[in-house]
Amino acid sequence: MTDLRLEPFFSGAGLDRADALRADEAALRELAAGAAARQLKWHEGLPELTPDGRLDWDSASKPELFLGFDGDAPCFCAIGPVVPDARAAFPLMAILHPEDAPLFAAALSLSRWHGRHRFCASCGHSTDIVRGGWSRRCPACSAEHFPRVDPVVIMLAEHEDRLLLGRQPQYPPGRYSALAGFVEVGENLEAAVARELFEEAGIRVRGVRYLASQPWPFPSSLMFGCHAEAESDELKIDHAELEDARWFTRAEVAGALSEAADAPFEPPPKAAIARTLLERWLAS
Amino acid sequence: MTDLRLEPFFSGAGLDRADALRADEAALRELAAGAAARQLKWHEGLPELTPDGRLDWDSASKPELFLGFDGDAPCFCAIGPVVPDARAAFPLMAILHPEDAPLFAAALSLSRWHGRHRFCASCGHSTDIVRGGWSRRCPACSAEHFPRVDPVVIMLAEHEDRLLLGRQPQYPPGRYSALAGFVEVGENLEAAVARELFEEAGIRVRGVRYLASQPWPFPSSLMFGCHAEAESDELKIDHAELEDARWFTRAEVAGALSEAADAPFEPPPKAAIARTLLERWLAS
Repeated sequence: MTDLRLEPFFSGAGLDRADALRADEAALRELAAGAAARQLKWHEGLPELTPDGRLDWDSASKPELFLGFDGDAPCFCAIGPVVPDARAAFPLMAILHPEDAPLFAAALSLSRWHGRHRFCASCGHSTDIVRGGWSRRCPACSAEHFPRVDPVVIMLAEHEDRLLLGRQPQYPPGRYSALAGFVEVGENLEAAVARELFEEAGIRVRGVRYLASQPWPFPSSLMFGCHAEAESDELKIDHAELEDARWFTRAEVAGALSEAADAPFEPPPKAAIARTLLERWLAS
Repeated sequence: MTDLRLEPFFSGAGLDRADALRADEAALRELAAGAAARQLKWHEGLPELTPDGRLDWDSASKPELFLGFDGDAPCFCAIGPVVPDARAAFPLMAILHPEDAPLFAAALSLSRWHGRHRFCASCGHSTDIVRGGWSRRCPACSAEHFPRVDPVVIMLAEHEDRLLLGRQPQYPPGRYSALAGFVEVGENLEAAVARELFEEAGIRVRGVRYLASQPWPFPSSLMFGCHAEAESDELKIDHAELEDARWFTRAEVAGALSEAADAPFEPPPKAAIARTLLERWLAS
């Protein structure tokens, strides 16, 4: 049985997206003009949070994107100014309320996608927002473009009750986390896990298992948390990708997660699925 | 234990993609000029197959995209002419050799992505091929764009030992298959399965489980095969999406898969993960 306390952050149903309404422009205009309509507040290119970590709302003055219904209230957002790096939102995760996390992720990814996809990749013409903001259409060549969702594998490789964790150069000092990489065209989840672990750490694996998934809106990843059995513990680290990678024992992982003073590494933050994977592994 | 005979088509390692070489333009030029280099043959916008279903190769005359190594042989392809509908490749799947399927998928998706993404979505300028064909860069605004991989959930909903299958209007007569839909920004796999089943069939589910995944290069989907338990068998079909949806018993699914004369429906084709899901369910 899955322990519900060990579900990743950013999981959950979020709003009722009322998909069928997206094609009905007149209905959306009417909803946006109604008294119940609300619009997400932006602050410097990111959703604005109240002091207790909830999303903040205003009346619908620029309802460009239809996010769905919260009960009877239709929820919209404007296309926010694009911050150069979506990871500017990382500090917000420390206070973001888990119930608002799926909507935070949807609004941030969708808004940013519009900001970065104003032109038709097929012909270069500027495109129009359609379907309540869930796609853009080119008036010149009729191509329709949908928001990106980029699948990423993130995985714990295990060998004799030790886990492989690595650190990327941009991590805070001392942090180690699960290895990860984008799934490419022509491969499935299991093939991507095997390829990434071989590329980055030189290990061959078998028995790849899916564990959990999580949207990661920095800018639009969908993380697939997996587990794999390593055939050996001999590492060949790709230093273009990783600063370091090491095997950690169960006691070392437990020490890191309990933030012990002598912990051998700093774990990934609580909102990251890598943390969930480590917590599940310890509980297993 | 996973029955290896029940792995989806298009699974497997494919080529050694030699990811680290992609950034080394000089090395790629040298490889392409070598005697061992080969290039995928295209025929009317699709990979050409030999009569026994293998990919066919030629010398490297237009090595635009680096696919990886087959043993010592560096494999390339040109950007093929874009067929209006990638599903034109469906008939090839009847003869495509399973070992060549991952490479077929990679070449078809990658080539088609280039054909449809010659311009910068961020500024509208034409873009250049970089990283051996694994991305495009804009000389005007420096944005880098990567090939799309679009995650799709495809799922068997079960209720009292019966499965929910539906038919889309464009299916061949009599065919029923698993319901499916694109994962959207801000939702994880499990949330997408629940949303799609509620939108298309009006049922609520719990206990969503991932089973297997498969690239589906028509044009660039990554199918996530799942199973879910339906809370009731009362359907409310969205006829904008589905022509019909019904519950089928184990005996009916078995009859369809064995192509019995009195089978109540035509199953999905062998290359589709929906078929794998049905075969696994029967074997379970």
